[in-house]
Amino acid sequence: MNSKIITPRTLKGFRDYLPETMLPREQLIATAQKVYRSFGYTPIETPALEYLEILGGKGGEETDKQMYHFQDHGGREVGMRFDLTIPLARFVAQHQHELGLPFKRYHIAPVWRGENTQKGRYREFMQCDFDTIGTTSLVADIEVVLVIDVLLRAIGIEKFTICVNNRKILNGILEKFELEGKSVAILRVLDKLTKIGVEKVLKELTEVLAVESVAANEIVKLITLKGDRKAILESLSPLLAGNKTGESGLAELWELTDRALAAGVAEERLKVDVSIARGLDYYTGTIYETFLDDLPDIGSVCSGGRYDNLAGLYTKERLPGVGASLGLDRFLAAMEQLALLPNAKKSAQVFLVNFEENRLSDYLLLAKQLRDQGLAVEFFPETKKIGQQLKYADRNRFPVAIVAGESELCEGKCQVKDLKTGESHVVSLANEAKEVAEIAEKIIAMGKGIG
Amino acid sequence: MNSKIITPRTLKGFRDYLPETMLPREQLIATAQKVYRSFGYTPIETPALEYLEILGGKGGEETDKQMYHFQDHGGREVGMRFDLTIPLARFVAQHQHELGLPFKRYHIAPVWRGENTQKGRYREFMQCDFDTIGTTSLVADIEVVLVIDVLLRAIGIEKFTICVNNRKILNGILEKFELEGKSVAILRVLDKLTKIGVEKVLKELTEVLAVESVAANEIVKLITLKGDRKAILESLSPLLAGNKTGESGLAELWELTDRALAAGVAEERLKVDVSIARGLDYYTGTIYETFLDDLPDIGSVCSGGRYDNLAGLYTKERLPGVGASLGLDRFLAAMEQLALLPNAKKSAQVFLVNFEENRLSDYLLLAKQLRDQGLAVEFFPETKKIGQQLKYADRNRFPVAIVAGESELCEGKCQVKDLKTGESHVVSLANEAKEVAEIAEKIIAMGKGIG
Repeated sequence: MNSKIITPRTLKGFRDYLPETMLPREQLIATAQKVYRSFGYTPIETPALEYLEILGGKGGEETDKQMYHFQDHGGREVGMRFDLTIPLARFVAQHQHELGLPFKRYHIAPVWRGENTQKGRYREFMQCDFDTIGTTSLVADIEVVLVIDVLLRAIGIEKFTICVNNRKILNGILEKFELEGKSVAILRVLDKLTKIGVEKVLKELTEVLAVESVAANEIVKLITLKGDRKAILESLSPLLAGNKTGESGLAELWELTDRALAAGVAEERLKVDVSIARGLDYYTGTIYETFLDDLPDIGSVCSGGRYDNLAGLYTKERLPGVGASLGLDRFLAAMEQLALLPNAKKSAQVFLVNFEENRLSDYLLLAKQLRDQGLAVEFFPETKKIGQQLKYADRNRFPVAIVAGESELCEGKCQVKDLKTGESHVVSLANEAKEVAEIAEKIIAMGKGIG
Repeated sequence: MNSKIITPRTLKGFRDYLPETMLPREQLIATAQKVYRSFGYTPIETPALEYLEILGGKGGEETDKQMYHFQDHGGREVGMRFDLTIPLARFVAQHQHELGLPFKRYHIAPVWRGENTQKGRYREFMQCDFDTIGTTSLVADIEVVLVIDVLLRAIGIEKFTICVNNRKILNGILEKFELEGKSVAILRVLDKLTKIGVEKVLKELTEVLAVESVAANEIVKLITLKGDRKAILESLSPLLAGNKTGESGLAELWELTDRALAAGVAEERLKVDVSIARGLDYYTGTIYETFLDDLPDIGSVCSGGRYDNLAGLYTKERLPGVGASLGLDRFLAAMEQLALLPNAKKSAQVFLVNFEENRLSDYLLLAKQLRDQGLAVEFFPETKKIGQQLKYADRNRFPVAIVAGESELCEGKCQVKDLKTGESHVVSLANEAKEVAEIAEKIIAMGKGIG
């Protein structure tokens, strides 16, 4: 009827996930779910669309501008969520009495931002948040470090550094010099440290913001402290002496890191970094950033912090909390660069050749028997030439192919082929193909070991 | 700053998933992923937003009206996907040369439709589609039956019926009476059979559509055939004799059902039902619907069929395919009605009481040891009174609590409490808490056994 072809394409800033990318992405999500659950975080889901009033409530100009929003069929002003934090705030305010506090949740879902597209930035991306709401206990802060540590190792990353800081330390030093009134502007300048360097930061503080030279020097000295955990924490002590906010932040950092180490985090993976500030207005206590030692340039792959009052816009009840978020897509890109992604193009490891038309039921039964033993089996739907089918198996990187011609089936046997080495085993189909499954598994396991 | 409270609420037709619902939902998705993968279907993902031109291409008035669409920041007309089939068509047309054919994919993702909200219908819901593209082989049709059968049993459903039909049978009988020109109108009347009954269908066919009485009677006779698979297939034979389309559909139904039975589908779970027609214009061959024997009224929980040309709007290449979709949310509602959902409110099964402030590191280490042995452990973040903590554990339906006071820890021991029976075991913490984990696991397993 309509013969005009519509060019198939995705929107600018959006992308499709093909199986090769989607397989490790799904595995990563499953690992995150498992680790979050093992610490007692429970899953929730919220709608992609919310009242604009709810999403706009946060007041961040930048996010408001980037938000996808429109009028729905019922004339309601609606928006697509641009993070999982606002929906969490709305969710907890709405359901707090059903949920009970403390409430530990994780939420793995896509968010949308109409930002300018840059390298590696998309307008749709996945967030993997976990948070504990309703407690000021430092135990919840400590657990965030433990989760990040377990999660990264579960994914197969060994070389990473979890950097922690505490906003009270920065606030303390500003209080000490009576600079609280300028804190937002000062923090904004400090955030540029790695970009513009110490000299320019000092210049901006003193010349643009009129901070006294002594104060500016001490602030910069504080945020550029280098060394191991103990050395930094010990150096902070005199700088913050006499200021309650700063001392409390320092005490929290000591306890947080001590406990995390006692609970099994390796010393070399935990660092105190006073320069990290994250989301200037938002966080009030512990702050986390996580870097891959082999790829420091991609930035933090897992970040978060403690906030005093999550849901103040939606409820009068004060709901403190702490949590972090795994940057799934950034992480996937990193794993690709580190060659940590599996090589698979298909879900199944076993490819079953469709050879003899009148043996279809035998093939279907064999596939069933192998699946019953836990193997994933792709059966070719057409009885094409065996060479063509094996080419398909090879192109799609199956480690194992099973070939059963008429003569083999008559003898109650089949061939199990190692597609990497080309080696072939003739194996009995007896006992519900138990031996076939065993040999296939052995070949798959060997391939994993090598590749 | 802003002291006005925004009422926390979701949009009409949308909903939050609280942990109690989200836990089984996540489990259901994981099971579907596993089953789909075991047959060689690979995961893909496509954007929630697409060019309006792509989504509107299908031309269905109803879906066009329900689609959420708007102008984005760049002035593009965009829409939110309302199913996963159009995105699949666009995806395959766009990437077919990278993908290679045949291509088996699954896609589990939310879709949005601004429909009138009725009982149990939401404007955002999850689809779980699986399809094989690029082959006309009946093997792909047979596999759809096998997947549905394995999937439902993997979820824990034993009593279900997979109903199959073939559109060629209906087309054949219409051809026989030279009624092809009226096929859309006739199928629409036949679709009302269960609602309005045989008499009224006959009346509408003859009076409204001017179908001759002989033809109308024979059509209705055909779609109301009752009996077991063989009886129905045998009765169809004379009705379709001499019509090639009908005979080919009948032959396919014979082979499809024969092969599915040979491959292990139980006879009582597979039914031929000539009355199912599904999505009138869309399907061209096999059609599937699946009913839960204990809840026939909720309708089909897994439906699909074969189509001749998936992506005709986006490519000149002809891409036939076959697949089905699990109605996740309908399914969840059904499982709830059948009391098949687990009772959990939390991810973790083990609740660790936070008792002695100065034993925090011991608790964190114990939690780690139990997690290392595969247990999910929630550690209470505050050192509240033990009674309060156990109340929290009880309210959140933890099967096991671990209590370790100062005296127990001094002896290198802890208490493992069965929260259902109230029974308590004093257990050694030696060997990385191996014995603690064993007893906790035993209690959890017993709770599962009882229900």
